[in-house]
Amino acid sequence: MVIVNFKTYSEATGSRAVELARKAEKVNSETGVSVGVAPQFADIATVTEAVDIPVLAQHVDPIRPGGFTGHVLAKSVKEAGAVGTLINHSERQLKLSDIDEIIKLAREENLLSCVCANNPSVSTAVATLRPDIIAVEPPELIGTGISVSKAKPEVITETVRLVREVNPKVTILCGAGISRGEDVAAALKLGTQGVLVASGIVKAKDQYAIMREFADASKG
Amino acid sequence: MVIVNFKTYSEATGSRAVELARKAEKVNSETGVSVGVAPQFADIATVTEAVDIPVLAQHVDPIRPGGFTGHVLAKSVKEAGAVGTLINHSERQLKLSDIDEIIKLAREENLLSCVCANNPSVSTAVATLRPDIIAVEPPELIGTGISVSKAKPEVITETVRLVREVNPKVTILCGAGISRGEDVAAALKLGTQGVLVASGIVKAKDQYAIMREFADASKG
Amino acid sequence: MVIVNFKTYSEATGSRAVELARKAEKVNSETGVSVGVAPQFADIATVTEAVDIPVLAQHVDPIRPGGFTGHVLAKSVKEAGAVGTLINHSERQLKLSDIDEIIKLAREENLLSCVCANNPSVSTAVATLRPDIIAVEPPELIGTGISVSKAKPEVITETVRLVREVNPKVTILCGAGISRGEDVAAALKLGTQGVLVASGIVKAKDQYAIMREFADASKG
Amino acid sequence: MVIVNFKTYSEATGSRAVELARKAEKVNSETGVSVGVAPQFADIATVTEAVDIPVLAQHVDPIRPGGFTGHVLAKSVKEAGAVGTLINHSERQLKLSDIDEIIKLAREENLLSCVCANNPSVSTAVATLRPDIIAVEPPELIGTGISVSKAKPEVITETVRLVREVNPKVTILCGAGISRGEDVAAALKLGTQGVLVASGIVKAKDQYAIMREFADASKG
Repeated sequence: MVIVNFKTYSEATGSRAVELARKAEKVNSETGVSVGVAPQFADIATVTEAVDIPVLAQHVDPIRPGGFTGHVLAKSVKEAGAVGTLINHSERQLKLSDIDEIIKLAREENLLSCVCANNPSVSTAVATLRPDIIAVEPPELIGTGISVSKAKPEVITETVRLVREVNPKVTILCGAGISRGEDVAAALKLGTQGVLVASGIVKAKDQYAIMREFADASKG
Repeated sequence: MVIVNFKTYSEATGSRAVELARKAEKVNSETGVSVGVAPQFADIATVTEAVDIPVLAQHVDPIRPGGFTGHVLAKSVKEAGAVGTLINHSERQLKLSDIDEIIKLAREENLLSCVCANNPSVSTAVATLRPDIIAVEPPELIGTGISVSKAKPEVITETVRLVREVNPKVTILCGAGISRGEDVAAALKLGTQGVLVASGIVKAKDQYAIMREFADASKG
Repeated sequence: MVIVNFKTYSEATGSRAVELARKAEKVNSETGVSVGVAPQFADIATVTEAVDIPVLAQHVDPIRPGGFTGHVLAKSVKEAGAVGTLINHSERQLKLSDIDEIIKLAREENLLSCVCANNPSVSTAVATLRPDIIAVEPPELIGTGISVSKAKPEVITETVRLVREVNPKVTILCGAGISRGEDVAAALKLGTQGVLVASGIVKAKDQYAIMREFADASKG
Repeated sequence: MVIVNFKTYSEATGSRAVELARKAEKVNSETGVSVGVAPQFADIATVTEAVDIPVLAQHVDPIRPGGFTGHVLAKSVKEAGAVGTLINHSERQLKLSDIDEIIKLAREENLLSCVCANNPSVSTAVATLRPDIIAVEPPELIGTGISVSKAKPEVITETVRLVREVNPKVTILCGAGISRGEDVAAALKLGTQGVLVASGIVKAKDQYAIMREFADASKG
């Protein structure tokens, strides 16, 4: 599984978000590897209109319908076509009780929950809250091009080991610095089920080619 | 001028956001009074696709393109069709330096900035930052149906007086509890140029009728 | 174990914080039950000067020495005489990664970590982070005088059950609405090792008498 | 006027906070120049016990007595001996409405309010809220040793010009990178009434000597 986080990169905003999602869809259909995308809130509707791959929000707030101007309602991203949401990304970290609440809200709305964590102990705490997916990303490697699966394999193996003690079923992804197919292959070999990636794809010269490389590497 | 804040009300989420925006457009074209709408981020694209009235975001973050997962880029709401944004709504308050930064970003992106303030002194501080619009809303009246223009007229007159000392041009709106045409008329008489309203319209049994009443009252 | 959170009540600020701590010390020495106090930051030094019971900070920040104006350094409360700190109180909730970091910092500084949690699932997540103490407090009962141990015993039993699955050693406290000795006795019977209490003692007419009642009830 | 912000530097924590405050007091009495200090919350009581110079808190919260665990009550720092407080330091920035509220609370408690601002427009907004002191500090220079009064004199002159348009009486300080007497002299020449300084003094090899140099430069 590959999830591409569009962040707020200009290369993945507005019409360029749709173009990138179309490339992801192409890779998806060519390889059979699940490639999901996480565009900005304002781009979810146009992206889901354009493609048939899983679209995730980058965040939702721990709220139900009501007076919460400027916040992100789970139901609103669901109605716009999202099938899931990132939660607690290192660039949008949340209070622990809010993570717990959002996982429950996502379940109610039938949205996949993909909770990010910065290290093995935080991943383990998250695992007890029963999200669908955990993505461990050492923040110091995010955006560096230095792959977590190469530079800090022990972060991944320790996360897998500790998470499995409390939650045998959750899908485990890793991220940070993933920029080549071999980084993806290494991640899978260390016990994860896929990667969460952003700049490695969004800022690549040939976004399609690198996504294809990731997907091919995912098949082993 | 009437700006309708959709907040995260279920009556104004997804397809219902589009329906409400269509009613606002009808009032707009029937009366010639400018009626703008502020839907949730994920609804901006579908709303701007459906109607030809001003659409505002409910918030944008003080960021430029980059690694800001889960945040709201001014450019993204602009590309989705918004012509402006609320800033510092009482339900999404911001650091002072961020308000300053967002006003500057909005100007760069050619987005109207409508900064909310909770009292006359805060309105005056905001006025020195040269936004396009200031909306004063005493938070204790928001959502109550008790109109600021009736219950606390001195908040409005004091705001108008102090703001005009430092900024003769900014558009001044008021809000909180506005629920009938006479509340709008009172607001204009006190020196404002219009109203920012949410539950008074969104939660009304007949959203069109009450918007029409507001628009008619705006014409004096 | 009884921990008395002084919050920012005027009845427990400045000289009144010292007076209340003295009453706690008296109960401590009369009953042998450990009674700790958590005064405001600015009162820690004078309280620790005055009494010989455990003094906790109400919060510390996830920082090391450096440029963090207005934040609370673990070392500063330690030097002022505190032996531990509350973490993630429902009135001062923290990001998950910060809770993880603060528990580690507390350990380095040899400070007891008492992490608050709002429900059984959050308590379990916290338990995997290996703090010294977990205090479960349903926020809706805080300050009500309706005791969690009477009104929501299932919150306590479920917390004890789930926490023990991942952490057999951590001390478990409960709080919210504890106002009589029988509430304390009930809490112990449900499997906790004590209570975290605030208004029930701080706002009592006779602070000493109620603390004594709590301590006596703690002895069974 | 010189205000020394102790931040959370280890060189100014606990007993070292007291030592540094004593040096400030010595400079104060030798030169007649007002030298105030802003230690950490937990050090306020011991510092005010030890010296007779103005002691400020580094921050207070926009709260009145009540249930605000882990927050900083104006009354608590006042009772501990502080005569004022920094507000909105760039390392502890606040919502605009909170700045407004804290200035009012400080006035009620008879505490001096020293509000920090990052640029001329924010300084001007702050000036309309009538604090006692404004300290403008470009955050990009904080802690660099590159003096704002040398590297960005236009920030200071623009701040003085704009602030004076809306507030003729407020005391204006500047800060960031101030590390020599000539930086202080330059700041005064540009129209300020003094400096807010941190690392330039706290991390100096000879804290007394550099404070004395600052004070001498303040006398012109």
